[in-house]
Amino acid sequence: MMQAKIRLFVDHPLSAGQSVPLSRDQAHYLFAVMRLGAGAPVALFNGRDGEWLAEVAEAGKRGGVLVCSAQTRPLQPPPDLWLMFAPIKKARTDFIVEKATELGAARIIPVQTAHTNSERIRQDRLQAHAVEAAEQCGGTFVPEVAGLQPLDRVLSGWDSTRRILWCDEALAGPHQTLSDAAQGPYAILIGPEGGFSEGERARLGGLPFVTPVALGPRILRADTAAVAALTLWQAHLGDWL
Amino acid sequence: MMQAKIRLFVDHPLSAGQSVPLSRDQAHYLFAVMRLGAGAPVALFNGRDGEWLAEVAEAGKRGGVLVCSAQTRPLQPPPDLWLMFAPIKKARTDFIVEKATELGAARIIPVQTAHTNSERIRQDRLQAHAVEAAEQCGGTFVPEVAGLQPLDRVLSGWDSTRRILWCDEALAGPHQTLSDAAQGPYAILIGPEGGFSEGERARLGGLPFVTPVALGPRILRADTAAVAALTLWQAHLGDWL
Repeated sequence: MMQAKIRLFVDHPLSAGQSVPLSRDQAHYLFAVMRLGAGAPVALFNGRDGEWLAEVAEAGKRGGVLVCSAQTRPLQPPPDLWLMFAPIKKARTDFIVEKATELGAARIIPVQTAHTNSERIRQDRLQAHAVEAAEQCGGTFVPEVAGLQPLDRVLSGWDSTRRILWCDEALAGPHQTLSDAAQGPYAILIGPEGGFSEGERARLGGLPFVTPVALGPRILRADTAAVAALTLWQAHLGDWL
Repeated sequence: MMQAKIRLFVDHPLSAGQSVPLSRDQAHYLFAVMRLGAGAPVALFNGRDGEWLAEVAEAGKRGGVLVCSAQTRPLQPPPDLWLMFAPIKKARTDFIVEKATELGAARIIPVQTAHTNSERIRQDRLQAHAVEAAEQCGGTFVPEVAGLQPLDRVLSGWDSTRRILWCDEALAGPHQTLSDAAQGPYAILIGPEGGFSEGERARLGGLPFVTPVALGPRILRADTAAVAALTLWQAHLGDWL
């Protein structure tokens, strides 16, 4: 079987013999930038049907068609872990989405907190970052990036069967670890650079489905905390076991 | 006691009553950018003497003097953990140094491997990144960033009492975890984007002080792998316990 060097996410069903039309941007990337011609192999995934080997059937300037031959990998969805974080500076927010995709978060939810600076995010751009991270890291799944939602409203509508791991930078002294935490659906909650407000801390502290966790004796930036918490969850409760 | 909002690294001894002269850059930052005047509090650390509260005694355009009053925190050195990594793209290399400082690495060693793209690094710039990260994260210690060294030479001169945790992206199947690893000095080794060469893999695999570790079922970028490995080590063997 030919080995594809390029992995592409397409929003199209994938199956044996399936034709996949390319967008103008995808055609430009494959044929103008990467200079592929008819017959060239490309690996495709759509986040649902695993990874497929496809061949270029038609290559044009404004479009093209790939045809799927065989599935090369099944869909490998991540464990049921969400990441909630307060958006920070653009580059660091992009980074969090990239790392959450690589580390295997199933859903990414930007939340607005009392001390969140940004009032809005570019959801489409963050989703594109998740797609690119999945293309790069060999993933077959792309986490959904939700729109920005106020933390208060998220907590009010919370399904209490999903535990929240609240990464609280103000947590001092001996702390809970994940090594004896119960299996199940989880969400990690990372605060903004300025920390949570007193009101938020009081509310989170009183919710039965919220578990505060500490991430070591040094104060971590929000993006570092996100990566560290995702890592520890995957190692203790996820698919790194 | 006045609370200092600005933390500054200075390469100068710190003790009660000690005068600390400022460089031109530091004076510009404190007096022109942050607009501090005489009597303003500044937190100082030098990586050796903990954190000290100091006051502005003289503020000038080209320099100035701070005077230390009291130690506000003792030196809190990180555990004896080194990070060795093959330099990658500039922004991601900067990122690794920042994160290693936050997560508590004692020493950072860029290594040149068979598939390392960059032939040289800006050691002074990376060291400045480590200083900035320590200033930001409230650390009292700054890890030394060593010059770029060939991996072969590093391994030839290795003190075998320090174990190397070799993060090998090609490691498949069940893998060793850190939960039952022995205490002691360690170094984490992260490969370049292209992975280690066959020769490097053979050599590393045959060294008694090298332990291969895997970081989950997804392929991680080098910078993600560095943060994940540092996190797991700190949680299992370091000062996050």
